[in-house]
Formats: sequence, C-alpha cells, structure tokens
Amino acid sequence: MAKEIHETIGHHYIVEASGCDPKIIGNIEKVQQILVKAADIAGAQVWSISFNRFPPQGVSGVVVISESHISTHTWPEFGYVALDIYTCGKSVDPEKAVVFAVEAFGSSTSHITEITRGLDEGDMIYYHSFITWEERFKNGGQKKD
Amino acid sequence: MAKEIHETIGHHYIVEASGCDPKIIGNIEKVQQILVKAADIAGAQVWSISFNRFPPQGVSGVVVISESHISTHTWPEFGYVALDIYTCGKSVDPEKAVVFAVEAFGSSTSHITEITRGLDEGDMIYYHSFITWEERFKNGGQKKD
Repeated sequence: MAKEIHETIGHHYIVEASGCDPKIIGNIEKVQQILVKAADIAGAQVWSISFNRFPPQGVSGVVVISESHISTHTWPEFGYVALDIYTCGKSVDPEKAVVFAVEAFGSSTSHITEITRGLDEGDMIYYHSFITWEERFKNGGQKKD
Repeated sequence: MAKEIHETIGHHYIVEASGCDPKIIGNIEKVQQILVKAADIAGAQVWSISFNRFPPQGVSGVVVISESHISTHTWPEFGYVALDIYTCGKSVDPEKAVVFAVEAFGSSTSHITEITRGLDEGDMIYYHSFITWEERFKNGGQKKD
C-alpha cells in the first residue's frame, strides 16, 4: 500500500469584507449556512462546526475542514466581516468559496490577501508568501429599506 | 448605560513553525492543552474548542475566543505546524501566546506574519496591513532520542 502523503502547501485567504448586509451577517443561522455551503463549494469535507453570538450583534464561527478551516467574525453595526478560508490539497478550490461567501454576505468591496503556506525548499524550513488585491461586487452593498 | 463599542481592529499572527517535536505536535491532547493555555496567556476568554486527528499523524484544532480564534494544523512527519492566533480588543496580548505556543511545540525556527485587520479611514471600507519576520528559538528544535 502506498504511503499516504499529506501535502503541507495550503492556500489561506484573509478577507476584510465591507458594506455587508447587517441582516445577514448578524444572523447566526444565515452565517453558519453560508460558511457550510462555502466549504461544500470549495470541495472540502466538514469535520466540525462551532458558532457563537457575541455582543452587541456579532457572530463568530469556525468550520473545521480536512487539515484546514473556514472562520468568520462579523460586526453587523459596521457592515464588516473578517473571513478566513484556509485549505490544503489539490482537490479543493478555496477561491470559489471566498467569492461565494463574500457575495452571500452582500459585501460591496473586499480587501483580500492570499497566503500560500507550508512552502519549503526541501529543507523542512517552512515559510509563506502572499499577494493582496481589492474586489468589488456589482450586486453587493449594504441593503437599505 | 453606555453603548458597548466593539473595536474592529484585530491582530492576526500567521505562523509557519518548523523543526517541531513530532511527539508533541502529533498528540491531540498535548496540542489542545497548548492552544488552550495560549488563549489563557493572551488573556482571552475561551468560547468553544474543536480538535480532530487527521491521517496519517496530524492534528487540526480550533479554539474560538471572543470575536476571534486560535487555530492549528500539524504535520508531525515534517515537524511542521501552521498556527493562527487572531485576537481583537486591547485587553489581550496575542504575541505572548504565539511565543508560548511555538516554544511549546519545540519549534527551532518560525516564519511569522502579523496582520493588522479591520483597519479603516472612518469610511467603513476595511483593509489590513502586515509585517513579516523570522524567529529562532534557543531551546527549540526537533528532539532526538
């Protein structure tokens, strides 16, 4: 039987999503549904889920997926979401999950850094590299009633 | 009663820890103890804990703390730990937690990026900034029997 090799390289998206819909990002059930669906869209297997409310209106949530995780902390009073999507392996597509989640939060604009983690030069001394960009969404933006 | 203000600014440490002790980072109970103690050292309140083993020898764990989280994924076969410590608020000291955790894993060297998240210019358009450095540990390094 071939020895199972677990790639150390992972892709970690660090996202500051602005202009999100407070009715969505302040609702623990909706935030949980969005993150679990994001994991599914990435092609990741969900291992465990932990969601909590924090005062005055925020939600903190983590979805543990194989060797990696999706996490979010929301500030509905500022339309702001801090989102992390970190995946390992070649069978997952975290960027699709980022785009899905940020659009589902109703974000108008997001500041994103993609960190490539677990890189080494064959010497088992690991490091990461990163690129940063802004993303604007046509249909996003904080809804006004 | 004064309205509770929840600061969006947070400090997120992204750590690639190398040369860690496989007997520590491959042991789910030890990894969990280290992360919970790291939360305590940071001065953070623990909200929930989720730890899982993943094959062949790794551990994935998340500790949700107020508005933020500590997470780790370990590869004992490579002496490698991917560690995140993200905290919000002024009453916590995440850097102490990072140093404690990385030393407790027995790491000889760590590549660290500190990301300041939830920054804005008063316009509720959030972004992050970062600095990166290497840290070497006198007493760290993979133990040999």
